[in-house]
Amino acid sequence: MSITAPAGFMASGVAAGLKSTGAKDLALVVNTGPRFDSATVFTANRCKANPVLWSQEVVKDGVVRAVVLNSGGANCYTGAEGFQTTHAVAEKVAEKVGIGAIDVVVCSTGLIGLVNSRDDLLAGVESAHAALSADGGGDAAEAIMTTDSVSKQCVVEGPGWKVGGMAKGAGMLAPQLATMLVVITTDAVVSAADLDTALRAATRVSFDRLDSDGCMSTNDTVTVMASGASGITPGLDDFTEALTQVCTDLAMQLLKDAEGADHEIAITVVNAASEDEAVEVGRSIARSNLFKAAIFGNDPNWGRVLASVGTTQAAFDPADLDVAMNGVWVCRRSTPHEDPATVDLTPRDVTVTVDLKAGDARATVWTNDLTHAYVHENSAYSS
Amino acid sequence: MSITAPAGFMASGVAAGLKSTGAKDLALVVNTGPRFDSATVFTANRCKANPVLWSQEVVKDGVVRAVVLNSGGANCYTGAEGFQTTHAVAEKVAEKVGIGAIDVVVCSTGLIGLVNSRDDLLAGVESAHAALSADGGGDAAEAIMTTDSVSKQCVVEGPGWKVGGMAKGAGMLAPQLATMLVVITTDAVVSAADLDTALRAATRVSFDRLDSDGCMSTNDTVTVMASGASGITPGLDDFTEALTQVCTDLAMQLLKDAEGADHEIAITVVNAASEDEAVEVGRSIARSNLFKAAIFGNDPNWGRVLASVGTTQAAFDPADLDVAMNGVWVCRRSTPHEDPATVDLTPRDVTVTVDLKAGDARATVWTNDLTHAYVHENSAYSS
Repeated sequence: MSITAPAGFMASGVAAGLKSTGAKDLALVVNTGPRFDSATVFTANRCKANPVLWSQEVVKDGVVRAVVLNSGGANCYTGAEGFQTTHAVAEKVAEKVGIGAIDVVVCSTGLIGLVNSRDDLLAGVESAHAALSADGGGDAAEAIMTTDSVSKQCVVEGPGWKVGGMAKGAGMLAPQLATMLVVITTDAVVSAADLDTALRAATRVSFDRLDSDGCMSTNDTVTVMASGASGITPGLDDFTEALTQVCTDLAMQLLKDAEGADHEIAITVVNAASEDEAVEVGRSIARSNLFKAAIFGNDPNWGRVLASVGTTQAAFDPADLDVAMNGVWVCRRSTPHEDPATVDLTPRDVTVTVDLKAGDARATVWTNDLTHAYVHENSAYSS
Repeated sequence: MSITAPAGFMASGVAAGLKSTGAKDLALVVNTGPRFDSATVFTANRCKANPVLWSQEVVKDGVVRAVVLNSGGANCYTGAEGFQTTHAVAEKVAEKVGIGAIDVVVCSTGLIGLVNSRDDLLAGVESAHAALSADGGGDAAEAIMTTDSVSKQCVVEGPGWKVGGMAKGAGMLAPQLATMLVVITTDAVVSAADLDTALRAATRVSFDRLDSDGCMSTNDTVTVMASGASGITPGLDDFTEALTQVCTDLAMQLLKDAEGADHEIAITVVNAASEDEAVEVGRSIARSNLFKAAIFGNDPNWGRVLASVGTTQAAFDPADLDVAMNGVWVCRRSTPHEDPATVDLTPRDVTVTVDLKAGDARATVWTNDLTHAYVHENSAYSS
């Protein structure tokens, strides 16, 4: 399923011994063509992991024929040795698949500073190649999990073509890519240039608006590969819509599986002067630990919402802001309005709406609450 | 002590019934002269509480003769009614002390959106005025506490003159003023212009570098009043040094009393291209929930330090960063160096040093770890 739902792809997921638990930890996705168009976006973090440094070179010509992904170690801040490991993994994939290493995207996830055994990785690639199958998408999705509690997969169908996706990520979710690895496949015929346009449009309103804990990762990668195996060339708008649907679906799966979260929070900023300002305001709220802790405590503390709004440069009148929580307008014109006691925050899904009264743009940013379990999971992660 | 240690000041702290516990909740500080020079800095939050809106007008002429402070309600987002309450409190202080209301700074702290009883506040001012004494500093410091576990006071002596201070603040500590109210007094002869210069220099390296939880408050106010009662005019450098000492001492008291914290963390960025860039990098680390949760778990997770550095625009080579934790250089040239297992993070005080190798500027930013208790306290605050 998922990434192997579109025609022209094979995948596998195997245990290469990188995870001490013996769980699957290495995934391989191969585009069998006939076309090999691709597009990729990477983390905006300036401290990039070795696989990102490698893959940035790979994607430049718009051709990607395989993606190899490992969990159990991020291969970040591991120096020249780490980069050589990434390179060796790409060469091994190339050798087994019969392609060039420069067409192999490498992704790693796990602890920073941890050097994985190169031998384990190379042996894992051999196993993964042997295990490749046209229905290996599920195994691949499982192999890239770290603190994820479930694997994330998605398929959207167009007329005669499909888009499939898999994702990992459960914390360190922040803009300019939530921390995550995502591979998306399609059997539609789409040029590399169109894939790039569509992917940037899709990630801008999905992964880029997920801000689980404000922390930006060093390894984020989203790669889309088009095999053209369906022989059908969709309109760019139709394809972009399907791709956006896949990205949004996967983003919501990431949000729901965020480490330790009790609530998924959709912060919608309306009547902003621009979409950018709506996102800026939404993100400032999404990053307020005080607001996030209040939601954990089922406390409709709208003062913490406005205190966050006030830290932005967006256009608004501080004396004329409206705030609703789960549909109850607890604040109108920057003063108390409906009784906060009528806001029921016990359901997992929480909505916050802020009306800036400064224009007609809007945007939604998604985040989670700040919980005891988040603190626990992130204080114990490497111990 | 504290604010009443310098000559020319009287203070008091009384219970005005704003706190449901019956604890002291209203403080009054009066400068009895002969001089009434002052300087004040306010929160940079664009959503400012009514007392800040009022006090911004008060301080414009450099003359402040009294500061009245209440806990038990921030009087923020309480509309015209709230502003009128602030105004009425200033008028009442003016009437009792025999000065003009436009020389009365008003500060409030507590829950946003809560409208305090104006009658309680005005009656409290009457009581506070009746209780004014030359050794009322301790009572005043107690009356401004909210979630503070201890009152914060400090005195620094110059030759023949003193500087005293009190502060409140225990969470929502962020730049452009940690959430807090601070009153500083001195009996030195210092002009309003010099006070302003000295205060901005002192807060820049103290309160402005405290970033407990990244949340900027709506009520922050730091006021310094000079009575000139000592008759001594110190050099501006000497005075600035004493004032900086008071601000730093109070800032460290705020840091140590931050809600739910288990560790005080000093993040020092060295060899930055500029002091601003050193602060930017320090603050980005101070705001990483992942880093802060790791410290709570006594986990020297330097990868999370570098991942934060990478989100800044400061000058550095991502492949050549050094990181020390509690003096152990766990990362050199962006690769693992000394064994993180040798870092003992059990003491409360933690130091993180990041060497950017891009210049010779440095700065220290202080923060706390992210704990279960922080989440608990801030999810239960208004419940």
